[in-house]
Amino acid sequence: MPNYNVGILGATGAVGQKFIRLLQNHPWFTIKALGASGRSAGKKYQEAANWVEDVAMPESVSGLIVRNCKSEEFHDVDFVFSGLDSSVATEIEADFAGTGIPVISNAKNYRTDPTVPLLVPEVNPDHIALIEKQKFSDDGKGWIVTNPNCVAIPLAMSLKPLHDRFGIDSVVLTSLQAISGAGYPGVPSLDILGNVIPLIGGEEPKIEAEPLKLLGELKDGVIEHADFPVQATATRVPVINGHLLSVTVKFKDAPSDFWEVKKAFQEWKSPIAGLDLPSAPEYPLHVHEDERYPQPRLHADSAKGMQTAIGRVRPANVMDAAYIAMAHNTVRGAAGGAILNAELLVKKEYISS
Amino acid sequence: MPNYNVGILGATGAVGQKFIRLLQNHPWFTIKALGASGRSAGKKYQEAANWVEDVAMPESVSGLIVRNCKSEEFHDVDFVFSGLDSSVATEIEADFAGTGIPVISNAKNYRTDPTVPLLVPEVNPDHIALIEKQKFSDDGKGWIVTNPNCVAIPLAMSLKPLHDRFGIDSVVLTSLQAISGAGYPGVPSLDILGNVIPLIGGEEPKIEAEPLKLLGELKDGVIEHADFPVQATATRVPVINGHLLSVTVKFKDAPSDFWEVKKAFQEWKSPIAGLDLPSAPEYPLHVHEDERYPQPRLHADSAKGMQTAIGRVRPANVMDAAYIAMAHNTVRGAAGGAILNAELLVKKEYISS
Amino acid sequence: MPNYNVGILGATGAVGQKFIRLLQNHPWFTIKALGASGRSAGKKYQEAANWVEDVAMPESVSGLIVRNCKSEEFHDVDFVFSGLDSSVATEIEADFAGTGIPVISNAKNYRTDPTVPLLVPEVNPDHIALIEKQKFSDDGKGWIVTNPNCVAIPLAMSLKPLHDRFGIDSVVLTSLQAISGAGYPGVPSLDILGNVIPLIGGEEPKIEAEPLKLLGELKDGVIEHADFPVQATATRVPVINGHLLSVTVKFKDAPSDFWEVKKAFQEWKSPIAGLDLPSAPEYPLHVHEDERYPQPRLHADSAKGMQTAIGRVRPANVMDAAYIAMAHNTVRGAAGGAILNAELLVKKEYISS
Amino acid sequence: MPNYNVGILGATGAVGQKFIRLLQNHPWFTIKALGASGRSAGKKYQEAANWVEDVAMPESVSGLIVRNCKSEEFHDVDFVFSGLDSSVATEIEADFAGTGIPVISNAKNYRTDPTVPLLVPEVNPDHIALIEKQKFSDDGKGWIVTNPNCVAIPLAMSLKPLHDRFGIDSVVLTSLQAISGAGYPGVPSLDILGNVIPLIGGEEPKIEAEPLKLLGELKDGVIEHADFPVQATATRVPVINGHLLSVTVKFKDAPSDFWEVKKAFQEWKSPIAGLDLPSAPEYPLHVHEDERYPQPRLHADSAKGMQTAIGRVRPANVMDAAYIAMAHNTVRGAAGGAILNAELLVKKEYISS
Repeated sequence: MPNYNVGILGATGAVGQKFIRLLQNHPWFTIKALGASGRSAGKKYQEAANWVEDVAMPESVSGLIVRNCKSEEFHDVDFVFSGLDSSVATEIEADFAGTGIPVISNAKNYRTDPTVPLLVPEVNPDHIALIEKQKFSDDGKGWIVTNPNCVAIPLAMSLKPLHDRFGIDSVVLTSLQAISGAGYPGVPSLDILGNVIPLIGGEEPKIEAEPLKLLGELKDGVIEHADFPVQATATRVPVINGHLLSVTVKFKDAPSDFWEVKKAFQEWKSPIAGLDLPSAPEYPLHVHEDERYPQPRLHADSAKGMQTAIGRVRPANVMDAAYIAMAHNTVRGAAGGAILNAELLVKKEYISS
Repeated sequence: MPNYNVGILGATGAVGQKFIRLLQNHPWFTIKALGASGRSAGKKYQEAANWVEDVAMPESVSGLIVRNCKSEEFHDVDFVFSGLDSSVATEIEADFAGTGIPVISNAKNYRTDPTVPLLVPEVNPDHIALIEKQKFSDDGKGWIVTNPNCVAIPLAMSLKPLHDRFGIDSVVLTSLQAISGAGYPGVPSLDILGNVIPLIGGEEPKIEAEPLKLLGELKDGVIEHADFPVQATATRVPVINGHLLSVTVKFKDAPSDFWEVKKAFQEWKSPIAGLDLPSAPEYPLHVHEDERYPQPRLHADSAKGMQTAIGRVRPANVMDAAYIAMAHNTVRGAAGGAILNAELLVKKEYISS
Repeated sequence: MPNYNVGILGATGAVGQKFIRLLQNHPWFTIKALGASGRSAGKKYQEAANWVEDVAMPESVSGLIVRNCKSEEFHDVDFVFSGLDSSVATEIEADFAGTGIPVISNAKNYRTDPTVPLLVPEVNPDHIALIEKQKFSDDGKGWIVTNPNCVAIPLAMSLKPLHDRFGIDSVVLTSLQAISGAGYPGVPSLDILGNVIPLIGGEEPKIEAEPLKLLGELKDGVIEHADFPVQATATRVPVINGHLLSVTVKFKDAPSDFWEVKKAFQEWKSPIAGLDLPSAPEYPLHVHEDERYPQPRLHADSAKGMQTAIGRVRPANVMDAAYIAMAHNTVRGAAGGAILNAELLVKKEYISS
Repeated sequence: MPNYNVGILGATGAVGQKFIRLLQNHPWFTIKALGASGRSAGKKYQEAANWVEDVAMPESVSGLIVRNCKSEEFHDVDFVFSGLDSSVATEIEADFAGTGIPVISNAKNYRTDPTVPLLVPEVNPDHIALIEKQKFSDDGKGWIVTNPNCVAIPLAMSLKPLHDRFGIDSVVLTSLQAISGAGYPGVPSLDILGNVIPLIGGEEPKIEAEPLKLLGELKDGVIEHADFPVQATATRVPVINGHLLSVTVKFKDAPSDFWEVKKAFQEWKSPIAGLDLPSAPEYPLHVHEDERYPQPRLHADSAKGMQTAIGRVRPANVMDAAYIAMAHNTVRGAAGGAILNAELLVKKEYISS
């Protein structure tokens, strides 16, 4: 496999730092360029960034000079990862795509654009064909692919096997979300130590909408969204990493034997299983038998943070089934998810070096 | 109001200690006798108990000699509070009731007995008439009244105004429960620090069943349980006090204007409002307008821990309405609830001094 | 006792909010005026402040219009409490004192001014005579009194009985400080959840210097500082309220019997014991016998947060004695300390209504 | 290097589990036998153990049948690791050593035995010669080597370079210790969440005594203990892993230039640097320049948990120097330390396969 030069937009922020950490020693991708705001541009990365990851800053990036997030400063990369803040992502990502630089984004800005794939490789790999509909650049060389919200990812991954077999009629969920989801400095400790905050601003609409695009069908170049309602309550809990979801679901075509539901999780095969993508976990879903599991502190790092853990699969008194889903919010749910997206796009030859 | 001499069964445990703390300076009740296991009996209370409350042990009890939990040792009390462990409560409570000593219990053992009121004064005060059906003692002088599980209490209190107006069709809830609910030593810190445990053993069946008895109707001396299904997922979070519930509810007769739901909470009148019970909060339900509230650390102690806080009342995509309910689990949800039960029973003259 | 009208400078900040909370229902002081930055001035307090206290904002202040922190807008108060940020306190406090309005400040700016008393009523009440040396206003009506750093207060309170009897030769201490000491938003949760930070910027110099002024002697209108060295390591721990100090001390004149050290704590009499100051705790020092105590979560609120708890008093292998001291950092160590200062100044007739 | 068959005594406890986790994939050692109490003996390990490590139980041990901790059941191993509880370690370890099976123990029972090496390979590797003085078995084939307490290890490692250059005169320290040090279930969450406990029973005497043996000199087959006093205050904080020490130290021969102290840490060479022991970190001491470091949550896992981190090296007002030391308490401070001991003993040919 050839090697690709990559840039990272928003490199000094929490998501950008996670990209850097996860790309260290990546077999295909080499970080060539780091972009941040004008305040950081021109400085060495180690001076510009307040590094918050719990491993040392890789030496390969500490000396890089931070650039402005302008496409003309990134001619030496094959594509960019975007960890940009949503307040600036719309223009900057369009600029890069417009000049022929593919953008693999974690920002929310283009997630609802009908021509932009909202991609989880294990859920909807076929949606990447949407790229061909994009008009960001005249020659089609530049495009944007996004990954979903950090709750929408494990939710969609866990719903996928059920939707395929039984059809989802409706979903009620409460999320218990880790503090790392709010970035840095993020949640003040006085707000969350020994406490729960029953609201995460702006989160619930994304949780309710994004799974419908992910589980939608691509027909004639258009995503037909899945049509079931999702009711979400998003809470913040004093956990470092790992969003836990308490999910109750009603099926269109419920199985007569509940055992079928558990089997649906266990027998599900990932559509990218044979592609040997470096960041793809061998088992994207892991079904725990121990009723006390999954737990964020114990299981968020499973399979290098790329696995969605399922537990407590059981019949429900209301609706049909209840279960717990949990995934690492800043790896599977953000930077790691975007890297897996890039790997799929390389494998499918949407990106060339 | 005359003064009543009370005994506490299970006085050395976490619930027993909370009874002692809350009864300190109670205007009607004086602690006369403390009962515990044979291991503690005969010792001074201050030597028998590993005091875990965060205020000093009241001097009025520290020198009391702990008794065995046998009715013949409690002739000098008007009634007893029971904070007994469920492994021994069945026999001991029957012994006390059988010899004419009323038992106001926090134990779960008799909650499902059709002749035993499962009582929350603001929800079903009329259920105390069930006492007359009890056969624990020949002369009817001894009887048992119980309070519900610590999640069932705020759940029932919050459902009551809705059930009265719209009829509850079904409920889905996820609880985020404080560690104090597991007693002492309870939850190991290695299990819960920076973590969530998605299971609390034995909790969900109680949450699913008890509200139906509480919201049931007393007809011809029999409780006709409410008939809606409740689906519960009970999780443990690193919070000291205060169980928070994320509730989604479907109505039998949903209002055309959602505003009616909020009004149902706000306009609801407690049936015991005029009785001047010392532990009754002026407002048993408090509806927060700030979407970030209620929070366990900020609001569990509101109204001396006896209030159920409501927040985020909003229409739901699935079912009809969603909201947050939160109450102090060891005050409103346990010892404080039992004390309020005793106050109602005194006022209604079921207890005499 | 007549009633005094007070103003609060820095009213929207964390310290200002604590002043408001503690002054609610104060028997002598009524909040008349709230001052904050130009951004807040002109707004109702409830709109200007992001209230973070865990009790509701008092109705008596919620409707007050916030003023600029300029002396000409505070003619209707008898004195002001200052919870100003140190970046602005120098000028503003001088302005108020200069126009005849006494300033009781929690800011650090004037603590080292040789004419400004650094005051803990139980430690150095005689230092208030320094006020007469001040030149802030021509007629001497305006002056400034400060309270020490939140670690220096319990440190000085605990050293006082020892210094009086044995003379302090040197002190080594490590502090474990609560997050509320950093204000709001203060410490990011990602930094402190399940963690310790072994540095609090700018804290150690204050801990090392302030006790020497507090334990100094007023001679001929000048404070002669105590002359022992203090070595401090200040760490941050995930605790809400209550700074805990691990102290090792060497005496100039060590007792032959260690029991004398414990007795020094127990027999110590507060010099303000007979003055009936509303915020003065009956026992400013409480010596715990249980070796597991004091603990911040259990004891920070003792005596309404105004007590310094002492524990584990024992001989030391190195130096002479070791002990634990702990006090509520935002009550005893900040706003509550300042209020007690004001009460003493009223009693001593430095403030008139 | 040949392969060694090892047994683990106390295999179901917290230390035993850590041994199993760390020995998984060890290049020299293969777990052959697991010993536990009679209650567990005869069961499969996966049924006997309540596994609490945050990685899955290795398949290589899950099916092993647990044995009694009797030497006659361990004929097939080359040596054993002991994670036994101190209540039973005295007899069991003597039994194994007596029948010729070397014991590498984490228990405290034989740490003070003058013939038993208390070993930290980077500090006192020469002490292993003491083994020849042991009389546990007639032929000398069985012996006992112990590792120190989890605070004594980083304390001794950090004192070693200073003692070698300047001579230690005295030490004052406060430890902030992680909850994993108390094993499982260990510290109740109600005791430690949002709190500090200023006492760890039995800990301080070990911290004060063990470094003196570690830094002692072996002369004529006898350890001459170092003779400086250590004053320790041991506190528990809500941290999962990593004991942090705030150390103040006085030298016998203080350098005129403080820079020498920092250089002593930086230039120190491990005496086992060239031995290629699999668990030995490349840098046993890491000196942080960032004053906010080390922090337990960020740095306990550095160098696979085997490194002692040093920070905030600075002159002290009292005594001579102050610094922070931190190490992973259950890896470097317990099971990992014992494994490193075993590796050294293999390399030095005290163990044969």
